[in-house]
Amino acid sequence: MIKTDILIIGAGPTGLFAVFEAGLLKLKCHLIDALPQPGGQCSEIYPKKPIYDIPGFPEILAGDLTKNLLEQGKQFEPGFTLGERAETIEKQEDGSFIVTTNKGTQHHASVVAIAGGLGSFEPRKPAIEGIADYEDKGVEYIIKDPEFYRNKKVVISGGGDSALDWSIFLSGVASEVTLIHRRNEFRGALDSVEKVRELTLLNKINLITPAEVKELHGDGKIEAVSVIKDGETTKIETDHFIPLFGLSPKLGPIGDWGLEIEKNAIKVDNALNYQTNIPGVFAIGDVNTYPEKLKLILCGFHEATLMCQAAYRIINPGKKYVLKYTTVSGIDGFDGTRKEAPKAVVQAIN
Amino acid sequence: MIKTDILIIGAGPTGLFAVFEAGLLKLKCHLIDALPQPGGQCSEIYPKKPIYDIPGFPEILAGDLTKNLLEQGKQFEPGFTLGERAETIEKQEDGSFIVTTNKGTQHHASVVAIAGGLGSFEPRKPAIEGIADYEDKGVEYIIKDPEFYRNKKVVISGGGDSALDWSIFLSGVASEVTLIHRRNEFRGALDSVEKVRELTLLNKINLITPAEVKELHGDGKIEAVSVIKDGETTKIETDHFIPLFGLSPKLGPIGDWGLEIEKNAIKVDNALNYQTNIPGVFAIGDVNTYPEKLKLILCGFHEATLMCQAAYRIINPGKKYVLKYTTVSGIDGFDGTRKEAPKAVVQAIN
Repeated sequence: MIKTDILIIGAGPTGLFAVFEAGLLKLKCHLIDALPQPGGQCSEIYPKKPIYDIPGFPEILAGDLTKNLLEQGKQFEPGFTLGERAETIEKQEDGSFIVTTNKGTQHHASVVAIAGGLGSFEPRKPAIEGIADYEDKGVEYIIKDPEFYRNKKVVISGGGDSALDWSIFLSGVASEVTLIHRRNEFRGALDSVEKVRELTLLNKINLITPAEVKELHGDGKIEAVSVIKDGETTKIETDHFIPLFGLSPKLGPIGDWGLEIEKNAIKVDNALNYQTNIPGVFAIGDVNTYPEKLKLILCGFHEATLMCQAAYRIINPGKKYVLKYTTVSGIDGFDGTRKEAPKAVVQAIN
Repeated sequence: MIKTDILIIGAGPTGLFAVFEAGLLKLKCHLIDALPQPGGQCSEIYPKKPIYDIPGFPEILAGDLTKNLLEQGKQFEPGFTLGERAETIEKQEDGSFIVTTNKGTQHHASVVAIAGGLGSFEPRKPAIEGIADYEDKGVEYIIKDPEFYRNKKVVISGGGDSALDWSIFLSGVASEVTLIHRRNEFRGALDSVEKVRELTLLNKINLITPAEVKELHGDGKIEAVSVIKDGETTKIETDHFIPLFGLSPKLGPIGDWGLEIEKNAIKVDNALNYQTNIPGVFAIGDVNTYPEKLKLILCGFHEATLMCQAAYRIINPGKKYVLKYTTVSGIDGFDGTRKEAPKAVVQAIN
């Protein structure tokens, strides 16, 4: 059982910044995320895209924002449960919570902060008969570790950036890469499209368009896929079939936690501290809703900060907290590090 | 008469970020600040100090944050009235406002956003008889333009960073710099203290401690000051007397605008959009108060953003606004510039 002060569900920018603000209050955080790496949408969907509305950054790539936020919070040593989805929550007699993931990992915390963005990103799955039987047996919808595919035969399906970029990357790792798309046209960054064209000419990528995977074959695990092109069906031997049709956000199991939901978002008390209808459970960032809500990262930062103050009072009942400014007081990391502004000296001159 | 959409009182980080958020909504801003430059406390009080709690910046100097925010908003061409203090507000029949400064500059706007921080920074004045008569006649409490002192005799009084830094700087501009402090000990950055010591040994700064300026002399303007040290009084000829005893924030004339005030801060409706009790007048950043308020820059950013949405509805009644993401839609500057993320291409490969 993982124990922490604040359990944060969702490791996007809002959840990551909560680690820092909690740390200033000497509270420890642990984050659960369904994706294999922190950063949420910023890392998974648009790491190379510039964001222009983060205060103080005239322009920052989404991936760099994630990196900076991880760096900002790292002295507070957050824990991570990645690649797992929070499934159930149970309130304990003492008011604390146990949250269990789809893989059975249990987390115990005094406060739960849902920073789930638009929801957990569920892969869009192709409508191929029996595909569910092959999941984790050669069918993967998200590539967690490219090394997993070293010297394996891989069939990728899809027409966007993910399909293009992973085909390029795996062409140097897998023994054989086949890219299948139902149109001739791909939609992605210009240099990715051109790179795939080049690798196709060099026979490093076996490109089949316009075509579709129609059938899966294999005994207990994928051994081949049937591809239909111009009415003709071909069977291609492969160790893996990776449909990359994008991710679609779903509130998921959190929707059954007894939280007040409105338009697929969790209602919170914005007049105080972004607490939900369940005391001790907060919702911050894009996952919440309240009058005049804006789904902006900078709003999530503010909400995370006020949530941490409320969490402090729940975890330290009766203890008075006086806001300290980092510029004045510096920062004591849980890892023993200290950051502080250069101190003024008091010194005689004459 | 200066005309604008949103008149922002206070050019600190919150006010500066409001320029950007307003610009996204095609609203124009004008800022008034009592200080001679934008940035508020960040520029005036601690430009060289690191801040650790701006989201996405593990560390940033306060002065650099100001620079970044100015850069982020510059394509929306904000106007500035600097070195003047907002004194009076008059509501017009059509619901708009006219705000007049202490120097008589008039501003007309549909919405007023008070982003006044802890208030306008008023210099702490030494208790010397008749000093008020010499203000702007050789007595200055803030140095606006060091060139003003070229080849002049200057007496500076004070024991902190401002007194140290300006003595150093003016020793290369003025014909004579005298630094007077009532203690031998100065409190400031180590290198400033050492630099003053060095310049004193080189006779570039005439250092007199422990001493105090007790009397001012001159006919219509400063001609000399009387300094008392060890019970002895000396008269020093000078063109300027600059007491740098720090700035102390005061809500000032805004306190008389009919706003609901609580603990020297303006009450706002945090459950909606940070509007004050006067419709059309908002208060954002450190100047406001509400349940669970935290006086943090990152909270000001959020408050500024929600205020801009409300301002949009006041200025464009009945017009529907759909939030656009800068990553998706890019930014059109009022100066004709355009920023946008590289677009995905749709291109056939085979």
